[in-house]
This record gives sequence, structure tokens and C-alpha cells, in this order.
Amino acid sequence: MKKIGLTILCLSSSVAWADSDLDMENKIRAEGFYNSEVMHTLEQLTDGIGPRLSGSPQMKKANEWTLNKLKSWGLKNAYLDPFEFGRGWSHDSASINLISPREVTLHGIPVAWTPGTKGEISGDVVIFEASSVADLAQYKGKLQGKIIMMGDGKNIEAPENSVFNRYDATELTKLKEFDVNKGPSHSPWVNAERRDSALQRFYFGKELNEFLAKEKVVGVLYRSWRQGGLINIFGRDHRVGNTFPVPALVIEAEHYNSLSRIIDSGKTPKVTLDIDARFHDEDRNAYNTIAEIPGSESDPEIVMVGGHLDSWHASDGAVDNGAGVAVAMEAVRILATLDFEPKRSIRIALWSGEEQGLFGSSTYVDEHFATRPSPTNKDEKALPNYLWKSQGWPIETKPAYDKFSVYFNMDNGSGRFRGIYTEGNVAAKPIFSKWFGPFSDLSAGTITNASTGGTDHESFDDVGLPGFQFIQDELDYGSRLHHTHIDSIDHVSEADLKQASVILAGFLYKASMADERMPRKPIPRDISDLQKQKMQLNIEKSRVQREKDANKAKAINALMDKS
Amino acid sequence: MKKIGLTILCLSSSVAWADSDLDMENKIRAEGFYNSEVMHTLEQLTDGIGPRLSGSPQMKKANEWTLNKLKSWGLKNAYLDPFEFGRGWSHDSASINLISPREVTLHGIPVAWTPGTKGEISGDVVIFEASSVADLAQYKGKLQGKIIMMGDGKNIEAPENSVFNRYDATELTKLKEFDVNKGPSHSPWVNAERRDSALQRFYFGKELNEFLAKEKVVGVLYRSWRQGGLINIFGRDHRVGNTFPVPALVIEAEHYNSLSRIIDSGKTPKVTLDIDARFHDEDRNAYNTIAEIPGSESDPEIVMVGGHLDSWHASDGAVDNGAGVAVAMEAVRILATLDFEPKRSIRIALWSGEEQGLFGSSTYVDEHFATRPSPTNKDEKALPNYLWKSQGWPIETKPAYDKFSVYFNMDNGSGRFRGIYTEGNVAAKPIFSKWFGPFSDLSAGTITNASTGGTDHESFDDVGLPGFQFIQDELDYGSRLHHTHIDSIDHVSEADLKQASVILAGFLYKASMADERMPRKPIPRDISDLQKQKMQLNIEKSRVQREKDANKAKAINALMDKS
Repeated sequence: MKKIGLTILCLSSSVAWADSDLDMENKIRAEGFYNSEVMHTLEQLTDGIGPRLSGSPQMKKANEWTLNKLKSWGLKNAYLDPFEFGRGWSHDSASINLISPREVTLHGIPVAWTPGTKGEISGDVVIFEASSVADLAQYKGKLQGKIIMMGDGKNIEAPENSVFNRYDATELTKLKEFDVNKGPSHSPWVNAERRDSALQRFYFGKELNEFLAKEKVVGVLYRSWRQGGLINIFGRDHRVGNTFPVPALVIEAEHYNSLSRIIDSGKTPKVTLDIDARFHDEDRNAYNTIAEIPGSESDPEIVMVGGHLDSWHASDGAVDNGAGVAVAMEAVRILATLDFEPKRSIRIALWSGEEQGLFGSSTYVDEHFATRPSPTNKDEKALPNYLWKSQGWPIETKPAYDKFSVYFNMDNGSGRFRGIYTEGNVAAKPIFSKWFGPFSDLSAGTITNASTGGTDHESFDDVGLPGFQFIQDELDYGSRLHHTHIDSIDHVSEADLKQASVILAGFLYKASMADERMPRKPIPRDISDLQKQKMQLNIEKSRVQREKDANKAKAINALMDKS
Repeated sequence: MKKIGLTILCLSSSVAWADSDLDMENKIRAEGFYNSEVMHTLEQLTDGIGPRLSGSPQMKKANEWTLNKLKSWGLKNAYLDPFEFGRGWSHDSASINLISPREVTLHGIPVAWTPGTKGEISGDVVIFEASSVADLAQYKGKLQGKIIMMGDGKNIEAPENSVFNRYDATELTKLKEFDVNKGPSHSPWVNAERRDSALQRFYFGKELNEFLAKEKVVGVLYRSWRQGGLINIFGRDHRVGNTFPVPALVIEAEHYNSLSRIIDSGKTPKVTLDIDARFHDEDRNAYNTIAEIPGSESDPEIVMVGGHLDSWHASDGAVDNGAGVAVAMEAVRILATLDFEPKRSIRIALWSGEEQGLFGSSTYVDEHFATRPSPTNKDEKALPNYLWKSQGWPIETKPAYDKFSVYFNMDNGSGRFRGIYTEGNVAAKPIFSKWFGPFSDLSAGTITNASTGGTDHESFDDVGLPGFQFIQDELDYGSRLHHTHIDSIDHVSEADLKQASVILAGFLYKASMADERMPRKPIPRDISDLQKQKMQLNIEKSRVQREKDANKAKAINALMDKS
């Protein structure tokens, strides 16, 4: 009975025996699980190099290290792809000490692209609240030599959400439901109102820079929006001519609140600052690292994979986005090691300038695949390009546009792959469903037509090219690691990175060998005149509301001054 | 129908109308909820004074502030109660910067009772692992000018437990079950084995101090046992002649691990340290703050309430134990404000030296209520007194021993009262059950015969006097605030402190007016000869085992040196 059963099984599975796909999956798994280099790669980026702020010397080092590493694995056409970024910046150390009314060391990290202090400085701390030019007048002549806090302290909420999360079956099922009202989270249908308010903020930012410089403010303190001692950092404008004039730190919410309460109690805190930071203007380019496994066909089509190599400067950029880089590199390393010759070229791109607005990937897409007209009016030109990039019409495609198949990006921490977002491309769904098949013991393979935003696949999607991100387990990425001072390799899950590397290698294999290139969504078009009119009305409405609020606030202040 | 029902109700509740107890509860609630000063008190201790390390100038300030505040509320017999503590210590600032192989500011806080650096120093960082004198030999002549890390880095676990917790009904029910095997968590039946291993550690500590000084180590780094950027601090020995000879910091686990991995990769990290810390030897006493609402009876009995006023030095000691102090003070303030004249005296005691071993409360109990013979042998004398305090026999009582009714302590964060631990005193259970009655809308009033340890009620319990702690909601006390650098008032729940203050005031009212003093457990006796023999055998067994392990380790090292 058993023997007969076996025979039947052998006969019926003879097709599978000859399945070169499954044979390749076996090889990928063996290489990815038992000869993995993914953690070693990540260690070099994090412990070895450390933070990789775009334009910084450390980022350049990371570019070179990744380039050489990819070459050493046999990848071809490897080069550093420069693009104009702005001023470089780096810092070595920073300290802030409260020296009155009591003495205690506070914990702060510099805001990127703000100057150093050139030795220790000290000053009285005052609260500064301004969100429009009208708000500045009250501070005229009052800030010289002061260290200003950007707003009051705020209450800290009890941390009731769990810190560490993996998707359960119910959540994955929920994720599959398409929400018509929600729409894509990013362009090409980007909200013009968002652009308008960014424009307001940009012009106020310029006024603020001038004001703070003129008033001789000596330091600026921002409150980390996270609590529990976590410092969540950010940067100010990195573009030449727009950089912030005053040394600035983000400090722990608890320390910020403490200063704020000291001020509330009628005392004046005095602090010392010592920030060793500087701009690097010798090279205003940033660089993407590019390399490929060339396709075997003549004039081959292109499959791309990548993630941003740049990070913020507060820690080592391990989960944001050393993890994505290490996995993308590991996926091409696995394929290169297997001496696999794809039909299509498999090109890896490790982007720079992502954290400041997807600059590396959008410039790359612009230069290689499709371009959109730059804005013509002064206002729009002044804005960072990600705020108008998706707005120019029409999209003009380049020859390689038709050669492009698909781009896979990884940039959501170190959590394992649980499925993939199709970005509304329903034609991709059955393909991904098939590709996830051999990985059913590794991943739920959930496929949702929803979009996920905020990273480099958008640069492709914005011009109608298929660009995707996987659904990843959240772990503690959003809750405490993203952009914080503890984004070190300590919080990376090795098993998850191996799983992601193997699935990604499998997807690259499939994409590079498939009979046809990845199907596409319709190419983005401008919004309709009706939608434009509606948006314009909304913009006007919110401008009027802002003015009303400002006038009301002024009237109240005037009354309070009298009483 | 309705009317008849009402009449019956009125008749049957006529007793309650005349109930002076409930009348008092009403007054306590009104004062405690609507005229609360508990947050104001806490603000003065935390934002105003800051950390209150025993023996530090800030602790002295807190003693004086609490004394004056209690006097201002009308409390009598108020004084600062000195006891011999050891060396005072304080620090103003501390910084640590990695300067090679890359530059980054690390986050560290000094270990209490370690010297400052007298300006910036720098040194190569090496790993040091020693838990016995035999381990020291390998480092001889190798540590001069070095900054040593106390052991390797360790893997960081995913933070899967929830950060913020309140008891649910199931957990409270579970808490009521008495576990016979568990026994009390603290003395008088304290484990002699613990004392023996403490003795080993103490003698090794002395050797280590001498060794590090002689070898001219310039700095010591400890790893915070917490992760996620939280620095969990501690102190080394504060006793004259025993203090640590080298400047020492606790640094973030992530930073510690990073240094450890740099060393693993074959590089030598170089760091700078700048620690502004010093000893205060002008006054080697610490002080408890004592005050009371005198009892109206002649030679009145005593009801006590309190918590430790001292804190660690990494933050403001808000939940450990500003909260307990503020609630104890608020409870007596409420009663004092109501011009309530208790039969028994209500005495508040705000202890010092709790964090180093309940020194303030145990000395107070010793001097006022009951004493035990000091150890006679040299070894035991060398140990901190909390390790022998509960071991001397027989307990000799003083006259006030019979006058004492009960002590209520608060020292488990700012979470609301959910019930009380009887410490195995089953006679107290029906009393507490009755006392919780009027608070049924504020608290579950769970009563468990289990014990809770680690704080000042133990000093009373150790000599057979009723000392209790309430069951409190955990909140984020244990998960991230206890002894960390974020123990600031930001994480205190105002509503919970008001609830606790009102219940505590209610309990003090009841305890001070009850017909009889609180029933007691049998006075502690020495353990039986049988138990002593067993313990001695265990001590010998573990000594033999330790020696075996050490010899084995030596043999392995010798083999490895040869190969």
C-alpha cells in the first residue's frame, strides 16, 4: 500500500522534479539561511561606519564600502551616481548642562545642518513661540545671548500601546480590504494643500533664520516628540543658502519639560552648550551606489532592488535603513553566488537623500526613466523638489522607461516579510500570489492593493513605473527605533533579515526570468479641473482661517497687555 | 410605593447618619480631591530640589523643605533625626565621548560614590571580567591608564512585555492566594546563604578597589541592565574606607554593546570622560524628617506613616519615591487641615538611606522600639547592617514598643491603591476589610496575606511590629522608571496620587481612633537548630561548588595559554 502510494506520488510529481524554479528556490534558501552574510553586512554599516547622514563623510564612506563589497561579489557596472544635494554636515559630540537653578547634565543631540558652538557657550533659557512673522515682533531686542526653547513643554501620556508587534492573522486579513476613500498615501495625487502649507512654512522659515541671526540668539532647543528618554532627531534645511544660523539640539522630552516647568515657576534656567559640528562644503553632491548582475539578453530589460543607504545621525541607522540595505545586498549576493544568469539585468540601487525627501531615487528616475517639467514660478522653485516633483505635467518618458520591469524597495525596519503592497496595481496581485507560493512556510504572503508611502518606491510609482514595498512585521520600529538615538544593531532581528533576504532573492529571480515584464498601472495624469478648483478653494479657505486665528490671537494678547 | 421605600431606607440608615466615621470620610474626600496639594508637594521635591541621594546636599535641602512644610501645616514635634550614614556624594555633570575609531557622544551617568575625573581624561577601553581574586592576576600590569568595561556586551531582547499595567480583576484575585512555599520576601527569616554570598562579594570588592587603584585604572564603565536608551543607575559602597577609587559611569546598554562589538572586531575604542563629582565629608550623617499630629490621650499610642525621601541621582526621584512622600505628606496635611484630634499620635517619618539598605528606618526602629544585638564577629561587622540587622537574637523591646500600633509605608510608584498586603498578619485582614469599605468606589480593596519586600515597612516587620504597604497599580514603575534617568514628574499620575492620599488619610484616621491598637504577628524568633544546620550545609555546599568552578576555569585557562 505504502509502496504503491509512493510510486504514484513519484509519477505525479515528475513535473516538479524538473521545475527549475523550485530547484533555484532550494539553492536560494540554502545560501540565504546557511551561508548568510546579511548580519555581517549590516555590522559593517552600523558598528563599522555608523550614522550615514546624506552628504556627510560617513555616508561617502558607506558609498565606497558598499560599492567595493558589491564588486567583490561579482556585480558589474558598479559606480557611485552623484547628484546635487546641498551642504554636507557632521557632528562628533554634543553636551548640554543645566547649571542654574540646579546642576544636571541633560541629554541632547544636534539638529542636522545646524552650526557647532565653537567651544562651550552658556545662556539663559527662554520660551519662544512663533509660527508666523507676526509672532516675531514681540521678541525683538529680547533674545540676544539667549538659548531659546521652541515652545512650551507638553504633558507626557502613559505608554499604553505595546512596544513590540507582529501582525496576527486578523490584522493581515484586515490589511487586504481596499479603502476607496483613503486613496494612495503619496503622489501622483499629492495634496496641493500640503504644498501650500509647506510653502508658508518655507517662507516663515527663511524669516525665522534671519530673525534669529539678527537677534543674536546663541542656541535653540527642540523637544523630542518621543518620551521615555528617547531622542527623536531631524534636520533643518540642507540646501545652500537655507541652512539654520544657530546651534540647535533636540533634547529628551523629560528634560525639555523640566526646563519648561522651571520657567513656569518663575526661575530662569541657565545652560551650557558645547556642540562640535560643522558643514562640509567641499563636495555638495550626494551619491547613490549602483551595481548590477547584467541580463543575458541583448539590450536587456531591468529589474531593480534597493533601499536608502543614508540614515539620520543620532545612532547607527540600523533598522532605518541599514536593515533594508543589508537585505537588498544579501539578495543580490545570493543570486551572484549561485552564478545565476538572469534574462533581465538585476540592478541594485542604494539611495542617498531619502530622509530629506527621496532625493537620490527621484533624481535617478528623472535621469533614467521619465522626467516631469520643473516648476516655472518662483514659489514652487523654492520648495524642496519632492513637493513639486509629482506635479509637473506631462510626464516625458525616456527610452529605458519601456525597458523597466519592476523595483523592490525595503525600508520598514528589520521585521520579516508578511506580504506585499501592490500600490493599487491589481494586475500585479496574481503574479505576487504565485511568487509567494514556495515561501508559504516562511510568510503569510498577504497581498493588499493598498499603498504604503514615505520611501523610495514612490519615485518609481510617481511616474507610473511598478515600485513596491513588502508588508513587514512592525516589531519596535515605529514605537521606539525610527529616527531615534537607539537605532543600533542591538534591535535587529537576524532571523527576520534572513527570511527577507531569501524571499527578496526569490522575487528578483522570478522577476528577472518572467516571460513578461511586470504589468503597470495607467500612467499618472494631472487631476481634473474640477478637482483643481476644489483644492484652490480649500487653500483659500484655510488661508482665511489662519489669518482669522492670527488676528484673534493678536487681539487677545493686546487685551492681556492692557490688563 | 416609592415613598414607602424611601421611608424604610431612612429609618434603616439612621445609624449611618450619626456615623462620625463617614462624616470624616466625607471631609477627607473633599479636602483630598478638591483642595489637593499633593502635586504641588511633589513638584517642590522633584522640579524644585531634584535628586535626593542620601547624604547629598540636595537630600539635606529636601529634609529641610519637608520639615518646614510639615510645620507650616501645623504638625508638632518636628525635627531632623540624624544617623551615621557614611560619605556624602554629589555630581553636577558627566560626559563621555567616543573619539576613536569614530566620534560620537555616548550617554552615561556616574555611579554614586565614585570620584570625579578632575577635568577631561581619555583612555583606551578594554574589557575586564573578574568575579574573584583569582581572576585579577591576568590583568596585572595591563590596566594602567585604561578605561575598563565591567564585562562583555550582552544581547538585547525584544521588548515583548507591555510597559504600562494596571491590575485586572483576575490578577487581584490571584494575589489573594497565599503561597505557603514562598514565605515572606524579607527577614526575619532572611536567608543566611544570601548573607554568606554578600560577604564573599564584600571581601572581593575590597580587593578589587585596591587592585584598580594600584593598577592605575582611570575609568570604569558599567552597562545599564535596562535597554532602549534607559540608564539604570546604582551606587558603590558609601561607607568611609570602602568607597570606590576610580571614576565610574553607567552607560546605555546600546552604547556599551557598541563599544564591546568594536573590541570584538579587533579595534580599540578610545573615549574621553569628564565627570564633575565629589564626596562630602563635612557631615557624615543622613537625616530622617519626623513630625506628628500629637494624640489627645495622655502618653498616647503611635500610628506611623511614611516613605523614603531619598532617591537615586539619575533623575528627580519622582515615582521612587517622591510620590510616596507626597502622598504621606498629603495624608497628614488633610488630617491637619481638618483640625482633627486623634486619640493616638499620627507620626510621619520621611526616611533617608532607604536605597542603600533601609538605613534610616531600621536605625529609627532600633532607637525607638526594639533592638537586636550587633554581630560580634569581624566578618558580620564588615557587612552593611541590613544583612545582619534581622539576625541578632533575642530582640530586646523598648517601652515605646508597646505603645506602637501600626506603620503604613508607600514606595511602589505613583499607581493608585488597589488593596493592601497584610505581611501574613491574618488578624489585620478583617480590620483592613472594614476600613476599605467607604472607599469601594475608589479601590478594589483587595487584601492579601502575602508579603511585599524591599522597603521601609520591613524595618518594623523585622521586630514584630505591624508595618504595611498597599497594593498599587504597577503603571510603568518597574518597566522603565525605577532607578532610571527618566524618573521625572512627567510620569506621575495625579489622579492616582489623590486617590492614594485620600485612602491613606482614611486609614490613618481609623488607625488613630480605633478602640485597640493593630493586632500583631508573633514576635520573630531565631530559626530552629535543624534549619540552622541545613543552612550551614547549604553554605558549605555552595562554597565547595564555587571552588570547584574556579579551579575548573583556571585549568581551562592554563590549557588555553599552552595551546
